[in-house]
Amino acid sequence: MPSTTGPMLATYPKSINLDRAKLAAAVDALNDCAQACTACADACLSEDMVAELTKCIRTNLDCADICATTARVLSRHTGYDATISRTLLEACATACRSCGDECAAHADKHEHCRICAEACRACEQGCRDLLATIS
Amino acid sequence: MPSTTGPMLATYPKSINLDRAKLAAAVDALNDCAQACTACADACLSEDMVAELTKCIRTNLDCADICATTARVLSRHTGYDATISRTLLEACATACRSCGDECAAHADKHEHCRICAEACRACEQGCRDLLATIS
Amino acid sequence: MPSTTGPMLATYPKSINLDRAKLAAAVDALNDCAQACTACADACLSEDMVAELTKCIRTNLDCADICATTARVLSRHTGYDATISRTLLEACATACRSCGDECAAHADKHEHCRICAEACRACEQGCRDLLATIS
Amino acid sequence: MPSTTGPMLATYPKSINLDRAKLAAAVDALNDCAQACTACADACLSEDMVAELTKCIRTNLDCADICATTARVLSRHTGYDATISRTLLEACATACRSCGDECAAHADKHEHCRICAEACRACEQGCRDLLATIS
Repeated sequence: MPSTTGPMLATYPKSINLDRAKLAAAVDALNDCAQACTACADACLSEDMVAELTKCIRTNLDCADICATTARVLSRHTGYDATISRTLLEACATACRSCGDECAAHADKHEHCRICAEACRACEQGCRDLLATIS
Repeated sequence: MPSTTGPMLATYPKSINLDRAKLAAAVDALNDCAQACTACADACLSEDMVAELTKCIRTNLDCADICATTARVLSRHTGYDATISRTLLEACATACRSCGDECAAHADKHEHCRICAEACRACEQGCRDLLATIS
Repeated sequence: MPSTTGPMLATYPKSINLDRAKLAAAVDALNDCAQACTACADACLSEDMVAELTKCIRTNLDCADICATTARVLSRHTGYDATISRTLLEACATACRSCGDECAAHADKHEHCRICAEACRACEQGCRDLLATIS
Repeated sequence: MPSTTGPMLATYPKSINLDRAKLAAAVDALNDCAQACTACADACLSEDMVAELTKCIRTNLDCADICATTARVLSRHTGYDATISRTLLEACATACRSCGDECAAHADKHEHCRICAEACRACEQGCRDLLATIS
């Protein structure tokens, strides 16, 4: 099932102050990362060694919340305010970096951490690619 | 970019009390519908005839919030509680039905409403398909 | 700091199809419960016996998400749709019941679970009081 | 009903790397602002002059999402990462400033915008007070 992000962007009735291709790629990466982080937090919670994964769970929860909110803000174009998008993208890239690092540290033991680390890296890159067109 | 929902489900370390294929399909439909509804609300807000679309915007906002929360709850399997999943899926299918009906009523005038109505229909079906395996 | 829920309700420019006092009480209880559940999940995560609290953490996360979404839906009155409010309130009361039961089972060992159980009970009651005026 | 934020903070089983009084004040201000912004967006949507309030609605929606996420992140202390809290607080203060400015511009015509502007100002201040103790 292809994402509806791009097709929906194409129907926006006014102009959009961002590169549409990079915007759609960032929103898709954000939603994918939010989903991966939510699932990784729960998978960590069910591991026998959960006591060693509490920082990973916490960072997953933060990253899921921040990515979901960033996807929403980037999906709104009415009354666009570049300063909100820019500072939020910076916070989101920071969260993705932290969560990607944390998950990567467990990637050899837990496949969910390996996949989640990849989603975080892709999302951080998507945020930075879009940021580069704003600032 | 294929969704990480299925691959992440496959890494969950304990058993899952739901049909994995229907679960992954529902979660993907929920995330897609949440994204479409957020974008449709904003597109409606930028239409010149926004005063005629206020009910559509409100229903889009509700549907986006409910779908996003349902996707999260369905992505957790630790300490699974069927009654939470079931009642939330029923509420979500209800919201998708209402939002799909509302968007369908504007589909001939606004392409974003047409695409969003389709996402709502697909999501309602995904919720009902999964519900059928729970109750 | 008194909640702005009641004062904001009083400024809504059109009619509201719900008992305003019960509505404001429910929204405040929902926001309070969402906050308590988010904090309880994190406190559980930092307990030495986290491995025995994984079901509690999961139920806290579900309850936080569902309460937050229910508070948002109940705070919208434009284009009101009773079926969405009713089914969501039922799902929310169910989640609060489950989370309250789970937290109550740990209340003698963990003060955060005791306080959170009380917030869940109050929220379940607030949802049911409002539901009684809808159905 | 007094907030459970402070009492829950007091039960956290490990140390917290932030000033607890300023932290509790910020979390309460964030939840209050999120609630006010959600209600203001809906009240604007029901005004006859909705077409002149579309930027206000959009900024309200952004501010509600960002404040809700910031309250969650600040309510987690396990595996604390100062860089996530700091950049998110900066993004949140930015969003509160923008939304407060926008609502203030409509405060003489709409009481919901006046109350919401106050909630945004208080929240921006709460974020900055907490930020001052981190950086």
